[in-house]
Amino acid sequence: MASEISEIVESTRGDERSVGVVCTEFATLFEPPHELVLSAKGERLGPIQVAYETYGRLTPERDNAIFVCHALTGDAHVAGKLARDSAKVGWWDELVGPGKGLDTDKYFVICANILGGCRGTTGPGSINAATGAPYGMRLPFLTVGDFVAVHSALIKHLGIGQLLAVIGGSLGGMQVLEWAARFPEQIRAAVVLASAARLSAQGIAFNAVGRRAIITDPHFHDGDYYSQETGPNHGLALARMVAHITYLSEASIEKKFGRRLQHSDRFAYELMRETEFQIESYLHYQGTRFVERFDANSYLYLTRAMDYFDLAESYGSLEAALGKTSARFLVASYTTDWLFPTPQSQELVTALIAARRHVTYVELKSPYGHDSFLLEVDPLAKMLDPFLSQAYAAGPSPGRPPAPLL
Amino acid sequence: MASEISEIVESTRGDERSVGVVCTEFATLFEPPHELVLSAKGERLGPIQVAYETYGRLTPERDNAIFVCHALTGDAHVAGKLARDSAKVGWWDELVGPGKGLDTDKYFVICANILGGCRGTTGPGSINAATGAPYGMRLPFLTVGDFVAVHSALIKHLGIGQLLAVIGGSLGGMQVLEWAARFPEQIRAAVVLASAARLSAQGIAFNAVGRRAIITDPHFHDGDYYSQETGPNHGLALARMVAHITYLSEASIEKKFGRRLQHSDRFAYELMRETEFQIESYLHYQGTRFVERFDANSYLYLTRAMDYFDLAESYGSLEAALGKTSARFLVASYTTDWLFPTPQSQELVTALIAARRHVTYVELKSPYGHDSFLLEVDPLAKMLDPFLSQAYAAGPSPGRPPAPLL
Repeated sequence: MASEISEIVESTRGDERSVGVVCTEFATLFEPPHELVLSAKGERLGPIQVAYETYGRLTPERDNAIFVCHALTGDAHVAGKLARDSAKVGWWDELVGPGKGLDTDKYFVICANILGGCRGTTGPGSINAATGAPYGMRLPFLTVGDFVAVHSALIKHLGIGQLLAVIGGSLGGMQVLEWAARFPEQIRAAVVLASAARLSAQGIAFNAVGRRAIITDPHFHDGDYYSQETGPNHGLALARMVAHITYLSEASIEKKFGRRLQHSDRFAYELMRETEFQIESYLHYQGTRFVERFDANSYLYLTRAMDYFDLAESYGSLEAALGKTSARFLVASYTTDWLFPTPQSQELVTALIAARRHVTYVELKSPYGHDSFLLEVDPLAKMLDPFLSQAYAAGPSPGRPPAPLL
Repeated sequence: MASEISEIVESTRGDERSVGVVCTEFATLFEPPHELVLSAKGERLGPIQVAYETYGRLTPERDNAIFVCHALTGDAHVAGKLARDSAKVGWWDELVGPGKGLDTDKYFVICANILGGCRGTTGPGSINAATGAPYGMRLPFLTVGDFVAVHSALIKHLGIGQLLAVIGGSLGGMQVLEWAARFPEQIRAAVVLASAARLSAQGIAFNAVGRRAIITDPHFHDGDYYSQETGPNHGLALARMVAHITYLSEASIEKKFGRRLQHSDRFAYELMRETEFQIESYLHYQGTRFVERFDANSYLYLTRAMDYFDLAESYGSLEAALGKTSARFLVASYTTDWLFPTPQSQELVTALIAARRHVTYVELKSPYGHDSFLLEVDPLAKMLDPFLSQAYAAGPSPGRPPAPLL
């Protein structure tokens, strides 16, 4: 992507492996009368604006595109900076760039903000053209299937017939699985990280607490808070705090914060000091920062879609769902991830093997809990390189796979 | 406790091993000018009313008393019923009764509601005699040391010089540990279940979320909600919901609820239906019920005391703290308890061994997570019987132990 000169410039700035300055693009899809038919109840939604970014160059054969599905609170801005003087890089910048795990010298990487989100793609905070007011809770119910339907349409819109790969962690991994089942001929490889074919009851429970915090916040106003002075900020921050605990491992919290105090070496014994321990201070900070960048209604829609996601329920069985594609799979779980623990990934692998699909599985040792897929990039990059090279070398997929040999 | 006739009556009602109908008693301690000097900042608190219950009979030698320290949201009502026609028995009724683990045919069992609580013992909801109004947040900061100081005074008030044993799980176990360090000559045996010498950073984090839910509830009014029409009920319910998740194991939630729906076999796809999944319905029910029986201010005081509890910090080291007593210890952890995991109990055992104390340790296999100490009573009862018999047979403790042989 970068010319030699700009690469030298980047190098002197210490980020020669960055994709550099990028910009978010927008596409408008599903314009009436071709609205998206939503999978929950058949309601129609359109037009849908999609915010996306791309990195690297599409080959003339259009055969090197990799789509990144972001997780619950991610967005389209995966790599690089949105402005040259920005200190902030994309959420997976360590993985996406020249010579990195998703090597932009070889591959054309795409990421789009999810349907129902709040970072440029149509969501509850968007204006409903029919009414001139934000959708709020009047946006129809969304599923992971709808998220993927929009991503799939974006790929077609970009003139790409088949993706080399689709990759994602957590809710992103759920989208990868759904993609393999819903649009099996559109992908040649699938990378599923720290994810599962369905959320556990414990995961539903934590999501339920987060949503409850939002909707009992008196500033929620049934979702119509956009014109109010303040939204359900306390509730949203609280939802983030509890979720954030589930993203970390007990050991990593203990190591990073332990029982260390924030302000002093000595206990203050103040009941209302909410930042006495460093871990408290950290959680409050995470909550506050989250409110600045995320919309409470989106949090409701996206966590609910996550709760409902159930690949076996949707397609009869995991084997039936995953047997539809000829894509090769890479599945990875992390030793300390207790939100999407290893057995859930192993269940996917078992189903893939039963469906006679090509699958590579690894449980990666990492101290960082569920967040490992974001933080522990090196071992992931090392696996992705040969996996993607093989998928690339194998050439375009013939389409639907032959029926499994039973 | 029960006469032969009443035992026969009980038998025909199918609960012959019950302590029967009991009543909560009250003692007033620390009357001015003998107020309790609180350990955090030396403030004075008194009079203190203590709600307690007893089961079984004290021997003429007064050597068979066992004190039960309840956990965060427990109370003095451990066993039996408060009214003959009540369907509700005490929170540890399976363990306390004739022929049970804490055998009331042999032992005199005592339990008191904790200082700062809301079930009869002085707490933030109590009237401050000096002002005629509830303490609210004006109650001074309380520590586990203060809880135990009140329990210890109650024992003296009841004319008991030395307890045969003190037993508790979770925050109750912290009280047992504190008791051993603070009043080492007052106990002959100590039973610490699903507990630790200090709360983990993850535990502090969950408590912080719960408190945040309460104090950001607009009905909190800085703790002065007693005269209001409603208290911070949403916040308190939310605190309970999140805490409740931490009391259960992932496997037990999965087994008990899984992804089963509450109202139908089919997904409703309703964003605002908060009881779609059984686990959600269950959590909401737990939250609602908790509000009926617990005070939000008490929740703040007690969880904060739990956060601050740090035996090594208070006494120089664990070994120093636990070496003060000649009591024999029984320590138990539970395989699926992730709030107070096994290594925390093992740390206690290591310190007890280093201090050359008599200790029995067991990790009990149980699917129920942290709540195992309440739910998995049989294996506990089997261990308690010989442990208590031995302690009883050994006779009263000589007082402080000889200096450890180093």
